[in-house]
Amino acid sequence: MQKIDIHTHIMPGEMPRWSEKFGYPGFIHLDHHKPCGARMMQGDKFFREIEDNCWDPSPRLRDCDHHHVDIQVLSTIPVLFHYWAKPIHAWETSRFLNDHIAGVVAAHPNRFVGLGTAPLQDPDLACRETERCMQELGMAGMEIGSHVNEWNLNDPALYPFYETCERLGAALFVHPWDMMGKEKMGRYWLPWLVGMPAETSLAICSMIFGGIFDRFPRLRVAFAHGGGSFPATLGRISHGFDVRPDLVAVDNPVPPRAYIGRFWLDSLVHDPAMLRYLVDLFGKEKVALGSDYPFPLGELSPGALIEGMPDFDEDKKTWLLSKSALAWLGRD
Amino acid sequence: MQKIDIHTHIMPGEMPRWSEKFGYPGFIHLDHHKPCGARMMQGDKFFREIEDNCWDPSPRLRDCDHHHVDIQVLSTIPVLFHYWAKPIHAWETSRFLNDHIAGVVAAHPNRFVGLGTAPLQDPDLACRETERCMQELGMAGMEIGSHVNEWNLNDPALYPFYETCERLGAALFVHPWDMMGKEKMGRYWLPWLVGMPAETSLAICSMIFGGIFDRFPRLRVAFAHGGGSFPATLGRISHGFDVRPDLVAVDNPVPPRAYIGRFWLDSLVHDPAMLRYLVDLFGKEKVALGSDYPFPLGELSPGALIEGMPDFDEDKKTWLLSKSALAWLGRD
Repeated sequence: MQKIDIHTHIMPGEMPRWSEKFGYPGFIHLDHHKPCGARMMQGDKFFREIEDNCWDPSPRLRDCDHHHVDIQVLSTIPVLFHYWAKPIHAWETSRFLNDHIAGVVAAHPNRFVGLGTAPLQDPDLACRETERCMQELGMAGMEIGSHVNEWNLNDPALYPFYETCERLGAALFVHPWDMMGKEKMGRYWLPWLVGMPAETSLAICSMIFGGIFDRFPRLRVAFAHGGGSFPATLGRISHGFDVRPDLVAVDNPVPPRAYIGRFWLDSLVHDPAMLRYLVDLFGKEKVALGSDYPFPLGELSPGALIEGMPDFDEDKKTWLLSKSALAWLGRD
Repeated sequence: MQKIDIHTHIMPGEMPRWSEKFGYPGFIHLDHHKPCGARMMQGDKFFREIEDNCWDPSPRLRDCDHHHVDIQVLSTIPVLFHYWAKPIHAWETSRFLNDHIAGVVAAHPNRFVGLGTAPLQDPDLACRETERCMQELGMAGMEIGSHVNEWNLNDPALYPFYETCERLGAALFVHPWDMMGKEKMGRYWLPWLVGMPAETSLAICSMIFGGIFDRFPRLRVAFAHGGGSFPATLGRISHGFDVRPDLVAVDNPVPPRAYIGRFWLDSLVHDPAMLRYLVDLFGKEKVALGSDYPFPLGELSPGALIEGMPDFDEDKKTWLLSKSALAWLGRD
């Protein structure tokens, strides 16, 4: 059975010292302090330790072979979105990151599919980079954050970007970043465990209530981490829409349940009962394997949760492991 | 079948003009602009329109009779916690609110059970008010917010309060307030639809990872809104604990799944599949009817979701409708 993993991250092994080049802090650089490992540094501040499978295709492919993953969809690590930077600088870093991903894909076109990143804080530049990603770099789509600084994903400022993605057939992968409440969650990794699921629900609600799926009906959108807290709180969200349309239905009169089946989720929920809930609710055609490779919070054995579901038949597993991904990517 | 609703809110029909009395803004007052209805006002700012069932026991009891609710557990509306105020003032407002609840309960002791509120920003005063609530006012427990200003619920500053609750047998009801990310969620009622579930997950994670359930083993805690986003993201939270104990297990080495069955959730999820998931995961003994009466985001026909579950037998429904509540309240 073919396995396509729609949620994996990659970065270049060498990056310019952007903070020095641009003259202000916040950009990540790599400190290769040991063989096969590096520290992601934000200035002098340690951000995360990574292994060489984060930048080097060889150990990635070894891991893919080990886990029988046929194709990985590659996307940028969200800390490199740089939406907070000056647009011209985020444009430069996006091009650098996208060129790297395109190079990895070009070297292994049967194993990798690329998603681009774009400087969404400047939608014109984001559209230009999206066009380059789709028309020159052969990418399948774009990865975007759960919000863009002060804009949620319903913001009209982003319409030109959505229009460009729709026109070019770019799949959109929405990933949480810049987690709400992070300043109040200093302990226990809670920005990742509580903030990220909330960010993804914020993203889905914003796109639904902002009418994005109706305004751009051919847009194909997938959300990370099984849609975060959205699927489990859909009852609350729908009821909120029903009882307070004056607050919720202000931009779109269509109830949220009408959009179930309209977008994709990855399968990264780490729990059989929750995966079953997702597939029952969204349909097998709208859940696609995503592992968050190579990060430890991901599914360490990509696809094992799906493959181990005792009550999922072969047809359902085929959709989850590959067919949903292909439909979302718009590829055969 | 007896029905106990553990999640209902009440406020006094007349409140002092606290902002004028204390000399700074932020306190709510009621503008009785029409019969059987009032506007909750924060200074000149409209907060929420309410009906007389929010303050008057008579229409409450009429609604209870209509929905066959035998007992309502009464608690303060979270906007009245006043954790942000000067402690001495929050102490005064807490006493006022608690006296009101105690009066309603005293007038209808077979229909209402009271929970108190306390000025948690000053744990000494909070303990004093908890003692008064439990020893003088005959309350069953206390309602607290999902965090207290800069403190999450693991904060050692709150230990004396938990110790007092444990010693006095006070049930704790944790309700979201002051929602994370609210400043970024100006549209679509998202602080209520996205922020509240995240707040409750923050509260549960903070109590688990902070070791509160071990430090205060006899504390009986229930969380609103079916535990918010916690139950559905338990897979992610558990996996995070497993793979990054250096970040997550810093205060408590016990994995989060060990606490399932250790606390209660209300049933307010607005969805049969999600209620089934909750009961399967937490057990029928740990899910109790909660409706958020009299607010529209609640279950408008309290208990209907539980009663309508086709695959729940009478024993399970009995637990959900009353026995779990009695065990949590510590009453027969």
